Amino acid sequence: MPSIAILGAGAMGSGLANALVRAGWEVNLWGTWLDDHLIDAIEAGKPHPRIDVVISDKVSTFRSGDLNMAMAGVDVVVMSVASVGVPKVAELAFEGISKAKALWLTTKGFLPAEDGTIELLPVGLRRMAQNAGVTLPPIVAIAGPVKANECAANEPTATIFGCRDYDVAVKYAREARSDHYAIEASDDEVGVELCAPMKNVYAIMLGIADGLEEKSGHPHHNLKAATFAQAVREMSILSVALGAKEATAYGLPGVGDLEVTGLSGRNKVYGVRIGRGEGAKVALKTMEELEQTVEGVPAIPLAIRLVEQTGGVKDRLPLLYAAEQIVYGDDPDYANILARAVLPARP
Amino acid sequence: MPSIAILGAGAMGSGLANALVRAGWEVNLWGTWLDDHLIDAIEAGKPHPRIDVVISDKVSTFRSGDLNMAMAGVDVVVMSVASVGVPKVAELAFEGISKAKALWLTTKGFLPAEDGTIELLPVGLRRMAQNAGVTLPPIVAIAGPVKANECAANEPTATIFGCRDYDVAVKYAREARSDHYAIEASDDEVGVELCAPMKNVYAIMLGIADGLEEKSGHPHHNLKAATFAQAVREMSILSVALGAKEATAYGLPGVGDLEVTGLSGRNKVYGVRIGRGEGAKVALKTMEELEQTVEGVPAIPLAIRLVEQTGGVKDRLPLLYAAEQIVYGDDPDYANILARAVLPARP
Repeated sequence: MPSIAILGAGAMGSGLANALVRAGWEVNLWGTWLDDHLIDAIEAGKPHPRIDVVISDKVSTFRSGDLNMAMAGVDVVVMSVASVGVPKVAELAFEGISKAKALWLTTKGFLPAEDGTIELLPVGLRRMAQNAGVTLPPIVAIAGPVKANECAANEPTATIFGCRDYDVAVKYAREARSDHYAIEASDDEVGVELCAPMKNVYAIMLGIADGLEEKSGHPHHNLKAATFAQAVREMSILSVALGAKEATAYGLPGVGDLEVTGLSGRNKVYGVRIGRGEGAKVALKTMEELEQTVEGVPAIPLAIRLVEQTGGVKDRLPLLYAAEQIVYGDDPDYANILARAVLPARP
Repeated sequence: MPSIAILGAGAMGSGLANALVRAGWEVNLWGTWLDDHLIDAIEAGKPHPRIDVVISDKVSTFRSGDLNMAMAGVDVVVMSVASVGVPKVAELAFEGISKAKALWLTTKGFLPAEDGTIELLPVGLRRMAQNAGVTLPPIVAIAGPVKANECAANEPTATIFGCRDYDVAVKYAREARSDHYAIEASDDEVGVELCAPMKNVYAIMLGIADGLEEKSGHPHHNLKAATFAQAVREMSILSVALGAKEATAYGLPGVGDLEVTGLSGRNKVYGVRIGRGEGAKVALKTMEELEQTVEGVPAIPLAIRLVEQTGGVKDRLPLLYAAEQIVYGDDPDYANILARAVLPARP
């Protein structure tokens, strides 16, 4: 029976815990110092506060002080904390991780290195590990259109495991599979990692099209569909520029995840508020007051730094730059900024 | 000032009429023998009954008996009738079409030839013209995520013109463009033609995921997103097998049009009815009683004949075959049929 330590008892870590119990794994779920109330609920057999699903009583829970106990002897460690927590948790966990056979990663995002360059998380983790004198096992990037509540509740879910060593991706895609949790294997670590934070940015733009519909009383389906197609195109362009495979953006991590993120979620809701005329800065303040983190917002300038350090593709990503202009700029003509970015240029 | 005769005064023909007036074209709009009530409304300055938008009074209208008058001296003829009407209207119009510089095509579908093989419309039209001793001008396939009501109302719209002669596609993409009607040029006639009828089939399947959500009271976003990604994959696989470019399925005609069709429309509504448990055959009867044609339903067996005459890709299109099983078969376990078709196979 393979075993895993899941670091982070939030939505995704807990959803994965249930899926892996169903696949026959021995699961240790470790909560950070911010997760005590989540662990309380899980241990009491109450629905998880973030996803409203009960976590299996076969999951062993661990509090923040018991990190090493949670990782002792496991085959796999998976990092499932919020991206801001990665450096701190990684530092605490590196020794335990180095003893595992693989490090999985559901956390996604852009990591600014000390010299200001932007790294995808696996690159940043390898660098941090090297600085700490630790050798990491193979990293498996996990992404795709997975709402944690549905994954936890055993609704049909498709995901992708991306590892530079394809055989490792296949091994775990087989071992972690269950009837309703189906896993594609890929060797494209970069593509799998990149699409996740990018789709949060583009989901804001899809939301704006919905909001314009609310505001005007007229459907804006054509604009939304053009936005969707342009978002997919831009994810594939940036992926390829970073050495990833085009197919990844056109598959579960790109097209699939953008579809689910554009259906619901905070990034989309924030976009709807903008589109219906609240003003990007006012809408963000409202979201903050509601304690609704909009991941796509901080991702925009980081993505732009990544684009500019990569070179050669800046002019082909008008929708990303339109997102910056809308969220961080002062021009309130959101409808026009969006339309200009997604309507095809004169051939 | 370029001039056009639009054959068919339904939603798409009339929407295009407004867009072309804005681009400075002289527009003749011809109604078939089924369109008199539509022409009546247009001439009376009332909203078009199918799209609830007023058609510009700069559009010249023609009744079914005046086909040759409508086509006299025009630069372009565009076929915008329902696909079932194509053979009849084509036969009547071939002589006029042969005098134009281009034949545009907004009608989409699969055409069964006399020997039972399935053709895309441009291929069928060329064959019919040859049989009639007529030479057709270059054909421009028009597709993409275009709801006719929004196009008519000048909401931002992105579309694609595909012609085997790329220069012809570019010429008309430039001439027909206006601020809110933006056109990409492509040389991929096959890809542009194929995605349109296929997306109707797949929109039914997206609707089923929505319907399962209604039925169960639990979200099925993960399943819907996996369905979306699989649909895009299948459109690209079949396109490539037919000699089209992969990029077309990943662009406006595939990803874009599937997005808009999955948001609304009759195919999606039919799928929702199935998903919430009405039974595929009962739901279809209800749609028929409401006079709601579900284009994706007759497209399924034609698409399957096309796949089987093409060869080599049948095993890679499980979602298309799942659509056949659900719509034409007797197994009521729709949720399971859909999940099996879209969840990744064990690697």
